[in-house]
Amino acid sequence: MPEFNAPLRDMRFVLHEVFEAPALWARLPALADHVDADTADAILEEAAKVTGQLIAPLNRSGDEEGAQWQATTVTTPSGFKAAYTTYIEGGWVGLSGNPEFGGMGMPKMLAVQFEEMLYAANSSFALYSALSSGACLAIDAHATHALKSTYLPPMYEGRWAGSMCLTEAHAGTDLGIIRTRAEPQADGSFLITGSKIFITGGEQDLTENIIHLVLAKLPDAPPGPKGISLFLVPKRRVNADGSLGAANAVTCGSIEHKMGIKASATCVMNFDGACGWLIGEANKGLAAMFTMMNYERLSIGIQGIGCAETSYQNARTYARERLQSRAPTGKVAPDKVADPIIVHPDVRRMLLSMKAMTEGGRAFASYVGQQLDLSKFSDDPQEQEQASALVALLTPVAKAFFTDTGLDSCVLGQQVFGGHGYIREWGQEQLVRDVRIAQIYEGTNGIQALDLLGRKVVANGGAALRLFTRQIRQFASLPGKPYARELLDAVQRLEDVTDWLLTRAASNPNEIGAASVEYLHLFGYVAYAWLWARMADVAQSSMDADPPFYTAKLATARFYFTRLLPRILSLEQSIRAGSEPLFELDAASF
Amino acid sequence: MPEFNAPLRDMRFVLHEVFEAPALWARLPALADHVDADTADAILEEAAKVTGQLIAPLNRSGDEEGAQWQATTVTTPSGFKAAYTTYIEGGWVGLSGNPEFGGMGMPKMLAVQFEEMLYAANSSFALYSALSSGACLAIDAHATHALKSTYLPPMYEGRWAGSMCLTEAHAGTDLGIIRTRAEPQADGSFLITGSKIFITGGEQDLTENIIHLVLAKLPDAPPGPKGISLFLVPKRRVNADGSLGAANAVTCGSIEHKMGIKASATCVMNFDGACGWLIGEANKGLAAMFTMMNYERLSIGIQGIGCAETSYQNARTYARERLQSRAPTGKVAPDKVADPIIVHPDVRRMLLSMKAMTEGGRAFASYVGQQLDLSKFSDDPQEQEQASALVALLTPVAKAFFTDTGLDSCVLGQQVFGGHGYIREWGQEQLVRDVRIAQIYEGTNGIQALDLLGRKVVANGGAALRLFTRQIRQFASLPGKPYARELLDAVQRLEDVTDWLLTRAASNPNEIGAASVEYLHLFGYVAYAWLWARMADVAQSSMDADPPFYTAKLATARFYFTRLLPRILSLEQSIRAGSEPLFELDAASF
Repeated sequence: MPEFNAPLRDMRFVLHEVFEAPALWARLPALADHVDADTADAILEEAAKVTGQLIAPLNRSGDEEGAQWQATTVTTPSGFKAAYTTYIEGGWVGLSGNPEFGGMGMPKMLAVQFEEMLYAANSSFALYSALSSGACLAIDAHATHALKSTYLPPMYEGRWAGSMCLTEAHAGTDLGIIRTRAEPQADGSFLITGSKIFITGGEQDLTENIIHLVLAKLPDAPPGPKGISLFLVPKRRVNADGSLGAANAVTCGSIEHKMGIKASATCVMNFDGACGWLIGEANKGLAAMFTMMNYERLSIGIQGIGCAETSYQNARTYARERLQSRAPTGKVAPDKVADPIIVHPDVRRMLLSMKAMTEGGRAFASYVGQQLDLSKFSDDPQEQEQASALVALLTPVAKAFFTDTGLDSCVLGQQVFGGHGYIREWGQEQLVRDVRIAQIYEGTNGIQALDLLGRKVVANGGAALRLFTRQIRQFASLPGKPYARELLDAVQRLEDVTDWLLTRAASNPNEIGAASVEYLHLFGYVAYAWLWARMADVAQSSMDADPPFYTAKLATARFYFTRLLPRILSLEQSIRAGSEPLFELDAASF
Repeated sequence: MPEFNAPLRDMRFVLHEVFEAPALWARLPALADHVDADTADAILEEAAKVTGQLIAPLNRSGDEEGAQWQATTVTTPSGFKAAYTTYIEGGWVGLSGNPEFGGMGMPKMLAVQFEEMLYAANSSFALYSALSSGACLAIDAHATHALKSTYLPPMYEGRWAGSMCLTEAHAGTDLGIIRTRAEPQADGSFLITGSKIFITGGEQDLTENIIHLVLAKLPDAPPGPKGISLFLVPKRRVNADGSLGAANAVTCGSIEHKMGIKASATCVMNFDGACGWLIGEANKGLAAMFTMMNYERLSIGIQGIGCAETSYQNARTYARERLQSRAPTGKVAPDKVADPIIVHPDVRRMLLSMKAMTEGGRAFASYVGQQLDLSKFSDDPQEQEQASALVALLTPVAKAFFTDTGLDSCVLGQQVFGGHGYIREWGQEQLVRDVRIAQIYEGTNGIQALDLLGRKVVANGGAALRLFTRQIRQFASLPGKPYARELLDAVQRLEDVTDWLLTRAASNPNEIGAASVEYLHLFGYVAYAWLWARMADVAQSSMDADPPFYTAKLATARFYFTRLLPRILSLEQSIRAGSEPLFELDAASF
């Protein structure tokens, strides 16, 4: 049976050795009092216990049983409620929350490691608190002090959960055309009416209350995305003293039957004149919601890494134990009926592909976490501004690249098992089904790619990209850095193709969408190359301290550079085909 | 709701225009009397009706209900038995069967089109007869006349089904270590004892009898793959007059719970001294079984194309109807709230990727079918020999490339639907789950790749490959052929990397397995390039007859050459990394 053991040694390697996070924390006043290397390690170890022993064991039974809906109520699978109760006692929901309202104030660099464990253990379970954390972030950033002090403490505690209500049946990517409306009331509240679909955790039996963040239109709102406002709509109304009042007019109409994440309730939510409160300014709800969405996008990206990590762990164990055929170079286990399949080059190719992409992703997530921490906690305005620009640039890459390659890794991990990968018993097929949603929700990966190339690269003439590539060039130009030549070649390709796109997009708006997905992948592979070179650099200089561990890092780096990075050649060539080959057919001729 | 309409126009294009099959049939005596262009069209039209109207409507309900097992019996989902009864009345199971025993004697080129429709309509349903067709082929090729006349007629009729019993719990890829044994009896029969797993249609309620082809070891068999024999083991014994006798000692112990193809019963089969008959020579069972396996491998490859075709049809319809956002170049449907998503370049990229790969695959399957027909029916020994060599070379490519890219296409088709692709209602997620098995069963795609590069390329020093590439070079060297330059470049890369591998493999057996999967993909993309150039060639010269149809072919060819074929650049580079980067880690360091 599959089990999950958090890759603590690898996480510490990234956090302490590659990014030297404790040194950063020590120089940021808001963090210096909260966290140091020992605190971080203690938190990660506790997180490993909670996810491995409490939450992972519910992964398969949760999938078998699924969330159940009956007459507006949702029942989570057996064991979820008890586990959730224990889970929130650890304060995990408020891990990186604002200490002023009860959050633990931990850096994002640490939170991303925890999130990876949570998704690796049980994606469905993880979602029940992931949405809460994001909702808290939006409330903390945009709501009034009164709303913050009422709602944030119980949400950080996990007694109340959050949800994100954007999509309507006719409006997913295109939020400008939503129909949910908000009527202002004399007391400053609003009555919200409309129907939302695909609401993760819109209803459940884990928490005392659910705080919906809802996009809706005011009566006088301009059409399109500039006429959308954000509202806080609790499932149960909240009295002035913070105690729970009457039920609000919001109910769960049904839940979806899905390919995976079956233990996560995906709800149709009906608002029938529900009482809500404006968050942020009228008609600027989309921008406020993006605070939450950007958080969720990184989080959902990490789902891709987490699922891939679990799939890798299972496949590695199986490949060491399953006896089948002999090694091409002769018997390795002559006393056995056959050799373990890990002797076969193609099995190694699959495992190393997973390992290289998962560890590359973990390092990239930590880098984005670092920039998030700098953008939030740095007292140097220039550093803060640069970090914010990098976060904006890198978030869509993290979301889409982690999850596209996360699916690939889960498919490979299933393939290692042969026929046993296709049956439910081993858990590998569930990981494929569960990770697949991560390419779709929180903005499809196609939308992430448009965001990256259109808004984050072309719109600023490539300035944000150069912030990023400059760091890569600086690293590769230092003497003795590993893979410097390959890295410089890769980053040059990225810059060249960006310049080419900037020119083309100026005369034809279709060029952005024609190139965007391949561009995002090209970007991702170049970014991972940088991170693998950095990891190899640390491994080289630390070798004597733990030869097996650092040798494995160097071997995986070599695999990445020789077998995976060459994918950028094809991506570049495909991008340069331009948009014309996409527009030769009219819609009827497809 | 999804529906399936067989792509008859595209199938006729491949069959009549690209391959000019009727002219070939006319010159092969064994086919000339059975089939001409009109017969073929009539069969395809009838097949389209049967698959679209009778079988496709059971696809989703079959997935929801699944095959059910209870105390050795298997119940197929509601409607399957009635549909199967109607289906076999059309004689479809014996479509390409031997006319001497009641088969219809149709060419494989026609059968591959029918098989595509069957898998496209309902993969689970398709499997119940796909195994019968393969079993018939092995019986026809290797069994005694007495066994053939007893078993083939009811199997071609579909009243009896076939199964293929190879895998045991400890022996999948490595059949040399199977434990099932066969005890010779005085009457020339054998008592078969052992347990087989993953047996598709090992038990069901559709047919009067099930004929298991079982691999087992005789008492004096040498160890390993050279000690395996093939036996025919009926579920119910058969009397001398062909009527059904008593139950044989073979029972279904359970069925698997799987990711997909849930309406197909995947059985544990227990043989407890069951009466069986030797097929072919003792200890040469693996070779005899390969007659069936090669057939099934092409068939399972076609599952990849069929599922991709259905996913494409659904995605195309959805992309024309779903309104969301505006085209980058300005409103296309100004009277509507948004434009249909087919205006967006990235949606077109997804649809064109599916279209190009599915139509390329269809042409490749027809080409393999053509070579199968030549190897079976040609009266020119040299032509027959060459065709057989090509079939051996191309079968693993068809199986693995169709299904690897079939998964990609189904994932893209799901992605076009956004969140709606993840819920069961639209059928797209089922296609992903159903097609996924095709990369695993009948020999994993990793095994196909080893077969291609090891046995079919390196073992004969590249001679079979040159048979194939010579045809491509001949085509590309004719004056005026489209994409000749790209094609020659691609085939040169394939040949160069093959030469490189031949040299490397001579000194290190790990090189084959290190390169095999990427090599198979490289081969596949080059083969599709040839077929797309041939299709473009026909489209150019036939343009006036149907401009919209042929324009679409040219546009899809252009998309293939500019956006997909560049993938060979990366594949080649990855192959040339060699095996060393795979062997730096010992098993414990993964």
